[in-house]
Amino acid sequence: MSFQPNNPDLKSFIDVSKDSDFPIQNLPYGIFSTPNQDARVGVRIGDFVLDLAGLSDAELLKDLDFDHSVFYESVLNPFIELGQQNWRATREKTSQLLQKGSPLEDKKDEFLFPVADVTMHLPVRVGDYTDFYSSIEHATNLGKLFRPNGEPLMPNWKHIPVGYHGRASSIVVSGTEIHRPKGQILPKDADKPIFSPCKTLDFELEMAFIVGKSTNLGESVSIKEAENHIFGMVVFNDWSARDIQKWEYVPLGPFLGKSFASSISPWVVTLDALEPFRVESPKQEPEVLDYLKYEGKHNFDINLEVDFIPQNGEATTISRSSFKYLYWNMAQQLTHHTVNGCNINVGDMCASGTISGKDENSYGSLIEITQGGQKNINLKGGEIRKFIQDNDTIVMRGFCQNENVRIGFGEVSGKVLPAK
Amino acid sequence: MSFQPNNPDLKSFIDVSKDSDFPIQNLPYGIFSTPNQDARVGVRIGDFVLDLAGLSDAELLKDLDFDHSVFYESVLNPFIELGQQNWRATREKTSQLLQKGSPLEDKKDEFLFPVADVTMHLPVRVGDYTDFYSSIEHATNLGKLFRPNGEPLMPNWKHIPVGYHGRASSIVVSGTEIHRPKGQILPKDADKPIFSPCKTLDFELEMAFIVGKSTNLGESVSIKEAENHIFGMVVFNDWSARDIQKWEYVPLGPFLGKSFASSISPWVVTLDALEPFRVESPKQEPEVLDYLKYEGKHNFDINLEVDFIPQNGEATTISRSSFKYLYWNMAQQLTHHTVNGCNINVGDMCASGTISGKDENSYGSLIEITQGGQKNINLKGGEIRKFIQDNDTIVMRGFCQNENVRIGFGEVSGKVLPAK
Repeated sequence: MSFQPNNPDLKSFIDVSKDSDFPIQNLPYGIFSTPNQDARVGVRIGDFVLDLAGLSDAELLKDLDFDHSVFYESVLNPFIELGQQNWRATREKTSQLLQKGSPLEDKKDEFLFPVADVTMHLPVRVGDYTDFYSSIEHATNLGKLFRPNGEPLMPNWKHIPVGYHGRASSIVVSGTEIHRPKGQILPKDADKPIFSPCKTLDFELEMAFIVGKSTNLGESVSIKEAENHIFGMVVFNDWSARDIQKWEYVPLGPFLGKSFASSISPWVVTLDALEPFRVESPKQEPEVLDYLKYEGKHNFDINLEVDFIPQNGEATTISRSSFKYLYWNMAQQLTHHTVNGCNINVGDMCASGTISGKDENSYGSLIEITQGGQKNINLKGGEIRKFIQDNDTIVMRGFCQNENVRIGFGEVSGKVLPAK
Repeated sequence: MSFQPNNPDLKSFIDVSKDSDFPIQNLPYGIFSTPNQDARVGVRIGDFVLDLAGLSDAELLKDLDFDHSVFYESVLNPFIELGQQNWRATREKTSQLLQKGSPLEDKKDEFLFPVADVTMHLPVRVGDYTDFYSSIEHATNLGKLFRPNGEPLMPNWKHIPVGYHGRASSIVVSGTEIHRPKGQILPKDADKPIFSPCKTLDFELEMAFIVGKSTNLGESVSIKEAENHIFGMVVFNDWSARDIQKWEYVPLGPFLGKSFASSISPWVVTLDALEPFRVESPKQEPEVLDYLKYEGKHNFDINLEVDFIPQNGEATTISRSSFKYLYWNMAQQLTHHTVNGCNINVGDMCASGTISGKDENSYGSLIEITQGGQKNINLKGGEIRKFIQDNDTIVMRGFCQNENVRIGFGEVSGKVLPAK
């Protein structure tokens, strides 16, 4: 599908540098506030935030035929509830307003705030959060480390987009500082746990989609319909306390090893904006069950990077991966999620699981990169790490790029503070 | 602690039968609507519902020094947010109003609705839902069935109140009909799954507590403070699709085998009302880590029953258990849940896990009662079951009873409809 706002020839009156994630072809949604204004809906363009509530006040959005109070909300949920047709109308309208010669151009200082002057907030109220496990490389790597004496991949893995419920309350926006979690750890060769701050703190490089259309209990979403239930995507850091996780996770899965925090990038990039970057998925062998069979391209070619930044140090890019490596795509994840009749709600978040590629420069977590802490990571400036130390910062970025346009997510950044 | 509204000598002008769960000493909160009135906050007394919004309109709650708009809400969350002191003031006030000779007695028909005339709703908006696994008998029974070649109890079980995140969106109120879930099942001796309606549908007899006081990310709740973060409790049926669960649950835990529905009783009984029924917990051996050590009585002597009702048939009570059997208490669960800094919110729900006793008449699930489907259950009227068939109804009840008073939860009932 081709959308008018995706036209690579469009130009904004705002100067957007070539390597910006936010040209006029992107226009992601977020929630921002300023010292003088409460949290409200904004659209990102270059280094500016366009204030949709302000535009509505000034009657510049009169073509949008719905209740504009959604733009004054502190979460995107009410806007998303309006449905795909209205998200598209809004993207088209903001695209028009940002083009050269639009009625906005002369008044731009009233409605466009430099990003440095705004505070970004969690963009949605997350009802339920699900974490999938859809990278075959990651699942294989983790299986080898967590169950060295068994088959790395469980028998169900190639039949089911395996996933589990995560903690919604502790999802935070980029920039939020995270305290090192404490908990139970089983020391090597001990038969009793100790209580301790986590000693093997890790990140997981993931992306997440945000549900855009609810269902009722008992309903299932077919794979053909699945992407119509997705509003957009963010970059997702699933912080992981490996020692806590290892001791607690049998038989019911990860719990406190994950629930202390997950961080997301603040700008929700719509599936519509990602349309030019659809790619084929890896071939699935053995063949999946009928309800998971799909036609067409349902992966996206999104470059992903992880920077490791020690306190007062410089950034080292320690991983370069891609969303396109994922074995299971989002349509399959959502279809599987609802096949039992589980209802989904606008604002629900589904993360991909760690996105690793085949070689170790593309692994999406420290436990994989360091092979469970056996290898060092050498950072610029001479620092060495196996896991995250206090006051280290992790930054993840995602972006699509072709000869015409770059559509990006910005970054999700999080600094780890000492345990409380 | 002794509360005035718990005084067993109090009498209401409403006739409450001896075997009612809802004497004036209980006064649980719920959300009800009538054909003429939107959902709002009510208190249960005998076979009636007291309309708190109506009482506020009539200026009968003037002593309650907070914004009464909370009583007109369709969930209890805003009321609960007011804090323990205001829950207690409200319970004391409604207790006074329901006593003989109160100003309400003459106007009772205006504010008291027969339960048969009202519709009950989900009492809270559940942010996050956690399911613990706190019955040693259940964990042992399930371990034997799911991992016949291993130790039934995992090495962590006696150190950690094991739990996992569940699906909040599919928690429904008693009376909601449930469609049999569909999903992937691995047939016996097959090496590939099939897609099928669940063939081994089960219930799990649980109770759940509702969080009454939020925390911030990074904070932990000490075991001394834990019960102050609990508003009240409900009976909880954690419907389980055993065949789906068995195939999907490694390594990340139960997902679609549970997320199709969980049912709760509509009346939230406060911890204050349960105060007379505190009992000692089972001894914990080996000793738990310091942060989980507690003083005093933190279990409650709550009798639990499960009725199985085939279509057009009569009820057979197939299990009689007790909340007091639980190895891990609610204070330990909540303290553990937050020890890593995970934040909790008002309305979050934490279920106990299946509550089984030592003998098979007290097992809290069919998979335990029938030993994985090997034994029959003989129902009154001649029907035989191993698992739940279409159009069967499961009813669970909970109540405390001593020589003075009975404090109960009413019931959670759910009928299973055929797969959609």
